[in-house]
Amino acid sequence: MQEIYEQNIEIDKLREECGVFGIYDFDGNDVASTIYYGLFALQHRGQESCGIAVSDTRGPKGQVQSYKGMGLVQEVFTEGGLSGMKGDIGVGHVRYSTAGASTRENAQPLVLNYIKGTLALAHNGNLINAPELREELSYGGAIFQTTIDSEVIAYHIARERVTAATAEEAVAGAMKKLKGAYSLVVMSPRKLMGARDPYGFKPLCIGKRDNAYILVSESCALDTIGAEFVRDVLPGEIVTITGDGIHSDTRMCIPKEKQARCIFEYIYFARPDSCIDGVNVYQSRIMAGRFLAMDSPVEADLVVGVPESGNAAALGYSLQSGVPYGTAFVKNGYVGRTFIKPKQSSRESSVRVKLNVLKDAVKDKRIIMIDDSIVRGTTSDRIVSMLKEAGAAEVHVRVSSPPFLWPCYFGTDVPAREQLIAYERTVEEVREMIGADSLGYLKLERLEEMADGLPICKGCFTGKYPMEPPKEDIRGSYEK
Amino acid sequence: MQEIYEQNIEIDKLREECGVFGIYDFDGNDVASTIYYGLFALQHRGQESCGIAVSDTRGPKGQVQSYKGMGLVQEVFTEGGLSGMKGDIGVGHVRYSTAGASTRENAQPLVLNYIKGTLALAHNGNLINAPELREELSYGGAIFQTTIDSEVIAYHIARERVTAATAEEAVAGAMKKLKGAYSLVVMSPRKLMGARDPYGFKPLCIGKRDNAYILVSESCALDTIGAEFVRDVLPGEIVTITGDGIHSDTRMCIPKEKQARCIFEYIYFARPDSCIDGVNVYQSRIMAGRFLAMDSPVEADLVVGVPESGNAAALGYSLQSGVPYGTAFVKNGYVGRTFIKPKQSSRESSVRVKLNVLKDAVKDKRIIMIDDSIVRGTTSDRIVSMLKEAGAAEVHVRVSSPPFLWPCYFGTDVPAREQLIAYERTVEEVREMIGADSLGYLKLERLEEMADGLPICKGCFTGKYPMEPPKEDIRGSYEK
Amino acid sequence: MQEIYEQNIEIDKLREECGVFGIYDFDGNDVASTIYYGLFALQHRGQESCGIAVSDTRGPKGQVQSYKGMGLVQEVFTEGGLSGMKGDIGVGHVRYSTAGASTRENAQPLVLNYIKGTLALAHNGNLINAPELREELSYGGAIFQTTIDSEVIAYHIARERVTAATAEEAVAGAMKKLKGAYSLVVMSPRKLMGARDPYGFKPLCIGKRDNAYILVSESCALDTIGAEFVRDVLPGEIVTITGDGIHSDTRMCIPKEKQARCIFEYIYFARPDSCIDGVNVYQSRIMAGRFLAMDSPVEADLVVGVPESGNAAALGYSLQSGVPYGTAFVKNGYVGRTFIKPKQSSRESSVRVKLNVLKDAVKDKRIIMIDDSIVRGTTSDRIVSMLKEAGAAEVHVRVSSPPFLWPCYFGTDVPAREQLIAYERTVEEVREMIGADSLGYLKLERLEEMADGLPICKGCFTGKYPMEPPKEDIRGSYEK
Amino acid sequence: MQEIYEQNIEIDKLREECGVFGIYDFDGNDVASTIYYGLFALQHRGQESCGIAVSDTRGPKGQVQSYKGMGLVQEVFTEGGLSGMKGDIGVGHVRYSTAGASTRENAQPLVLNYIKGTLALAHNGNLINAPELREELSYGGAIFQTTIDSEVIAYHIARERVTAATAEEAVAGAMKKLKGAYSLVVMSPRKLMGARDPYGFKPLCIGKRDNAYILVSESCALDTIGAEFVRDVLPGEIVTITGDGIHSDTRMCIPKEKQARCIFEYIYFARPDSCIDGVNVYQSRIMAGRFLAMDSPVEADLVVGVPESGNAAALGYSLQSGVPYGTAFVKNGYVGRTFIKPKQSSRESSVRVKLNVLKDAVKDKRIIMIDDSIVRGTTSDRIVSMLKEAGAAEVHVRVSSPPFLWPCYFGTDVPAREQLIAYERTVEEVREMIGADSLGYLKLERLEEMADGLPICKGCFTGKYPMEPPKEDIRGSYEK
Repeated sequence: MQEIYEQNIEIDKLREECGVFGIYDFDGNDVASTIYYGLFALQHRGQESCGIAVSDTRGPKGQVQSYKGMGLVQEVFTEGGLSGMKGDIGVGHVRYSTAGASTRENAQPLVLNYIKGTLALAHNGNLINAPELREELSYGGAIFQTTIDSEVIAYHIARERVTAATAEEAVAGAMKKLKGAYSLVVMSPRKLMGARDPYGFKPLCIGKRDNAYILVSESCALDTIGAEFVRDVLPGEIVTITGDGIHSDTRMCIPKEKQARCIFEYIYFARPDSCIDGVNVYQSRIMAGRFLAMDSPVEADLVVGVPESGNAAALGYSLQSGVPYGTAFVKNGYVGRTFIKPKQSSRESSVRVKLNVLKDAVKDKRIIMIDDSIVRGTTSDRIVSMLKEAGAAEVHVRVSSPPFLWPCYFGTDVPAREQLIAYERTVEEVREMIGADSLGYLKLERLEEMADGLPICKGCFTGKYPMEPPKEDIRGSYEK
Repeated sequence: MQEIYEQNIEIDKLREECGVFGIYDFDGNDVASTIYYGLFALQHRGQESCGIAVSDTRGPKGQVQSYKGMGLVQEVFTEGGLSGMKGDIGVGHVRYSTAGASTRENAQPLVLNYIKGTLALAHNGNLINAPELREELSYGGAIFQTTIDSEVIAYHIARERVTAATAEEAVAGAMKKLKGAYSLVVMSPRKLMGARDPYGFKPLCIGKRDNAYILVSESCALDTIGAEFVRDVLPGEIVTITGDGIHSDTRMCIPKEKQARCIFEYIYFARPDSCIDGVNVYQSRIMAGRFLAMDSPVEADLVVGVPESGNAAALGYSLQSGVPYGTAFVKNGYVGRTFIKPKQSSRESSVRVKLNVLKDAVKDKRIIMIDDSIVRGTTSDRIVSMLKEAGAAEVHVRVSSPPFLWPCYFGTDVPAREQLIAYERTVEEVREMIGADSLGYLKLERLEEMADGLPICKGCFTGKYPMEPPKEDIRGSYEK
Repeated sequence: MQEIYEQNIEIDKLREECGVFGIYDFDGNDVASTIYYGLFALQHRGQESCGIAVSDTRGPKGQVQSYKGMGLVQEVFTEGGLSGMKGDIGVGHVRYSTAGASTRENAQPLVLNYIKGTLALAHNGNLINAPELREELSYGGAIFQTTIDSEVIAYHIARERVTAATAEEAVAGAMKKLKGAYSLVVMSPRKLMGARDPYGFKPLCIGKRDNAYILVSESCALDTIGAEFVRDVLPGEIVTITGDGIHSDTRMCIPKEKQARCIFEYIYFARPDSCIDGVNVYQSRIMAGRFLAMDSPVEADLVVGVPESGNAAALGYSLQSGVPYGTAFVKNGYVGRTFIKPKQSSRESSVRVKLNVLKDAVKDKRIIMIDDSIVRGTTSDRIVSMLKEAGAAEVHVRVSSPPFLWPCYFGTDVPAREQLIAYERTVEEVREMIGADSLGYLKLERLEEMADGLPICKGCFTGKYPMEPPKEDIRGSYEK
Repeated sequence: MQEIYEQNIEIDKLREECGVFGIYDFDGNDVASTIYYGLFALQHRGQESCGIAVSDTRGPKGQVQSYKGMGLVQEVFTEGGLSGMKGDIGVGHVRYSTAGASTRENAQPLVLNYIKGTLALAHNGNLINAPELREELSYGGAIFQTTIDSEVIAYHIARERVTAATAEEAVAGAMKKLKGAYSLVVMSPRKLMGARDPYGFKPLCIGKRDNAYILVSESCALDTIGAEFVRDVLPGEIVTITGDGIHSDTRMCIPKEKQARCIFEYIYFARPDSCIDGVNVYQSRIMAGRFLAMDSPVEADLVVGVPESGNAAALGYSLQSGVPYGTAFVKNGYVGRTFIKPKQSSRESSVRVKLNVLKDAVKDKRIIMIDDSIVRGTTSDRIVSMLKEAGAAEVHVRVSSPPFLWPCYFGTDVPAREQLIAYERTVEEVREMIGADSLGYLKLERLEEMADGLPICKGCFTGKYPMEPPKEDIRGSYEK
């Protein structure tokens, strides 16, 4: 019965919470397999559960086929199952969540019947006023079958739809009530809609392939399915795709300088081959590496990245500094989510199973090791040790993000503050803890430069958020 | 992905739609494994999906653990999974449904958050006004994630709870709106409630084991778990079990003569070792057999039952008539729900795979064959042929229910009228179709006698229902 | 990984060890699905593992497709899998075994390459000289990958084939070395062979459907697949089915009076709708019941069988004695091999989960309860108690076999002698242990009568075996 | 039933056939979980099936527990299953094979009973005289239950053991008959043995952790389990590990210059963090890149590797040439063996799903793209196109191995000659086919340099093999 998903072997990382995908094919082709490929390209955004819902816009109104399950896209879906899903419009979702709510019930897309037939909804982000909204709805007699924000959003759309002239008006009405981060894809019987919160925390973009329009979290998925990138959905914009084309509603947009993109999309979450709001993710990581070389230079023989995410910044550092770029680690390519860990002796640590050092490459060398972030510091500690045991003369750690100090309320899973290595510690103290010879973080003021001037959310570094944070930590609080 | 459940090999039978189980152990013992055993004893009431939800009445309010899945109780639950479900109060459900809605989403119990925390609900029966109630709720902005009536019931309880003083008052308020058949078990954080519709279509009774109270569809499950039968829940009664004992609310009860129990519980659905509303199921089947012997006598050498459900009536016939009782069929004990049927030659019919004739036992004999009902007649036809091929001299068919002619709106899955063999056919025509030498049905007026005088619903035989049936066939209609 | 199969809830029974099936269709039709149906009809002979191997006699010599797995036939095989198995000749097997060797490696049919291509072999029975034969082969450099006798048989066939002119001569040569019980079905690229040990311990018969010949353990499977019974394979006979017809080799046959059929096939193992060596199994059970009524009469109100296997003898008892036949027990039809038993309270005993008493049927009655055998007596004890708790005035137990006292070396799984309730106890002592008011066993001298005069093996009742038993208990001994 | 494993999405690669692991812990600790970690580190050597067998050297002689299954190590084994495997000595295996024999029956280790108890055997490599040996054994009456060479080897060990004084003598005796490539790990009840064919085709080395000795295909697995590298097993050596220590038998060794290591272990198969026969795999790839820069220089802006295996050579090229190293591709980290490919439009090619180009990184650049080998050329073609579509000004392909032209008989799965792109084509013709602006292969004479002077097998490049190849292609030939 209960599907148990073992903890990922890669424990000391922040977690993205979701990826969304929507498509409407005006030529009437079945879209399920394209959604499958799209979700596969978004798999890095969520490995816990996934789902697809499709509908036939030419069939009886509101007939939706959906399938959701725990696990990776290729574990949940089968060829036969996909070919049985008929429909020219559909949405998909990949999800990661905190442990408590990692259940099949919470998998998305959320498919429901409401006043106008059916609705399927996929959501990336976190509402900060979800508890209040839930409570308010409860007092009106609402029932909740999941603990996901998407259900709160769906309720608001359904309530607005009672009086709203169109589905997109209902979405617009609902958005007025929602506070926080949300990139949404919504499918009604004859329309595909996308919406992004006014701050633009999470990405969402539009693609096109022949006569099909796509809405997707990251542009890399467009490449995978052979579609062209059209444009990003604007922060605050609602786009509605129907047989008549794309309609844009920008009434909820706010001044650009108030926007607050999540910088971790650039630092770590997004795939390097994605481009978000005009900024190439790979180039932004190269830039971060260059800044580290400018701001925290050190004499060394070799600069290496902690795979995979540290490699781009390491290359940037090398290009800027002239220190040769190299490889120090081999990652076991079979480490997956479901890696079981039978009783280990102290010799078979999680890190060793995942990473090994190329001893000949590091022996007697002064190494600059680039990682994208240090959260608890547990992994950094062991990786530095491994390099030293392999004979590295010096290990200089450079981190392509500033020290991580505060909670995130907008969709990133962060440990409690006391568990953050940088919490109430100086950089020197952190350096000592992880056993590095020197330690340098990306400077806070480099973040906008890294994102080519886009306004960003720095809450997790500064504790100053683009909107008033909730009084108490709301994450999971309504999972009573 | 999509779990496919092959059609039962036993195709020409009516289908019960559910079984419910609830328990509250005042000694604080975990109840999940007892629910498991209880559901196992109710398995005949639904083999498509099942589920268990438990809660700890001494823990934080509203923490519910639940697990649901497609398949038999012993397929869905594992020992480890059950032992991980901690709680002294819980509900369980087994389900059968029509094909369209046979999905995991529709499995019960329904677990939800509402104004006062959590609610878990298990339901047996069918509401006839569910579509209207859904529509009404939709106009108030409600969203529906399943296509089961239980969600409609839950919504009404939640709405009533906004103003009602207690959960049981909310249940009472909701019941005023519900029309049709329902036996409910409802768990709130500190209470276990049971309710039965005023007509008493479906059974529900109360049991006790040490300091634990049980609510369950059939008394046979009480024997399995070693509990004592306390009493039946009255039609229209709401019982509330708390730390203070059992409270009864009979305000919704109607005069006994207006009640309308489903006679098929006695004829076929219930287990013979159950006792419903004071009437022993096995004895009622013996009685039906006796009535057939009285009303449709025939000279013969042997009276046999079509296994399993025809055996008791065959014994009754034998006792009344003096014709020796015997066995004519061997049933393959491994025929289960998931029997796959690879391309068959005409020689490997479904009936042959399931049943075989004891040739030596029937050769040259005049046989009276008792079946509990004839629906489409397809199976009867083949069984009569098998007896004749095995050398039976004559085959006289006796059916322990009247001819089946009308739809059921209250929870039994019936084929379309045109598929019913008795539809627009005389008994003589049916006899000819199934190839019997004579055919006799139970007389309509014997039904009350069979149920020891209890008022019963005869809708499926007469087309006269205890309440106004819906204009159009509502079964599945909101599964747009 | 390791598939764990929970112990059957029905614990106090002897175990059959296997069922075999072979078919050769001269019209060239694929036989896999027919084997599937045939094995399904033999499922009662083994529920632990099963397998099918097929070959195309018109294809390249020796291409065999096989599939084996742990579990029931319908659990192991899928429709798609079966339709992918192409071939007009094939063999199948169902297996039960003692716990130690219940592994996938030991599942049959055994498929192997040998000097003349491929061989597939399915075996029912137990060799008593397997350890010696294994040792002897080892000294010649043989390797063993299983712990089943079939591998020893296969080796001998392979060795004989080096010099033998034909495959059937190789089988004949091998049989000279084998001691014990074996009913074999062997498939070579162009031939289907069947063989039965000279004593005829285990059944094997021949059937025909259109242009296909079938070899199968029990005739009931012929009914299931719509084939006609042709004849039994003689004890000691080898039959060879080729395109030229059936060839019989009776050189190994011994005088009929030396034969030694296993009487438990008639008492309990075989399906009642099978006919073995001319004796109808159902009728032999009816006879056993009649003998009990003659030899151990008692005044009573009702005679009942312990389901399912006690019912026929109960009917026989009733017919002979005039005491009315009735039903006292309801068996939960969903009890299967994989029933899990989460921690039970004393109230949820295995027997209660499986059987319930029809209280109204037994209350204040004097009951004669017929069971087919008493092994350890643990179940009998509880069933008698259940009847008494339900109000039975008296419970008289009659057993349709003699007291079970000695081990079986020929393919039946028997507990250690000390665990047998009849071991070193008088009938009166046994009666007291199980709490019955009287107890009667079938008389030893009735066994031949029951089998219509066929010579039988009485080893398990008398300790006198048709051949010298091995010095030490060999069962499982080579599973070092 | 039949487990279907979809073809790997990475199709244009050679395939390694196996990895082996053995361990004997003199402190008596259970070794199953260590084998699990070891196999996980060898997963790249075989992803089709895997298995573990363990034994307790202090228990009854010959009790072996084994478990094998289709799939990755982490798919086949569970925590509970591993903890149930008790034993201080054990062997493990990971396997890749050609499609026809990809069955559970062929999974290793092979566990068998023979004259002296049990034997478990894991094998990497391919015998070229297996068909003759099988035939010879058949004529002696042998039976074969698998189609793997290991069974032939086991038979020879078993036959030798009839007269040999010790197990290691039996292994030595068997080796005299075997021709071809084999690295073996063999477990008898009280000994762990390792052997490598005299040519040293496949690697095998010895490690140590506390009081446990390990035999393993690659040293990287020693790092994973925290063991120290002791030394390589010599080509032709048999090592025997008992309670008395390690014994070496070098009687089968041949002069070093006759040895013939498989160069593809260095080029592609082995993990870069392994060291084989004193040569560091990563360094040998760096060297290959340097040689390419020396021998096939070209003016360019960026040198990139085709991930993962081309990266090291790309770095070597960059170091030698001064052309900056960069990243051009992003590989989807979730591409695994079981990736299903629902009907694709032409837009969703396998390559696109797996790889994406970093457009900004390659735009307008002259690119040197390093790949480790070109087999059919299908993938190269598409990757070059992708770079060009992304705006690369020029694409110069450099291959870190010579043109692949001949079959391999020693354990590498190679397509038919006609499918090899270099077959009967000039380098210029190949260049044109894959659309590159220039193409350079590693020179044949660089191979020894790359392997630091070790004698290597160049058969697949030259058609000249270290021993007479079989007349006809034997791969799979006995899978009749």
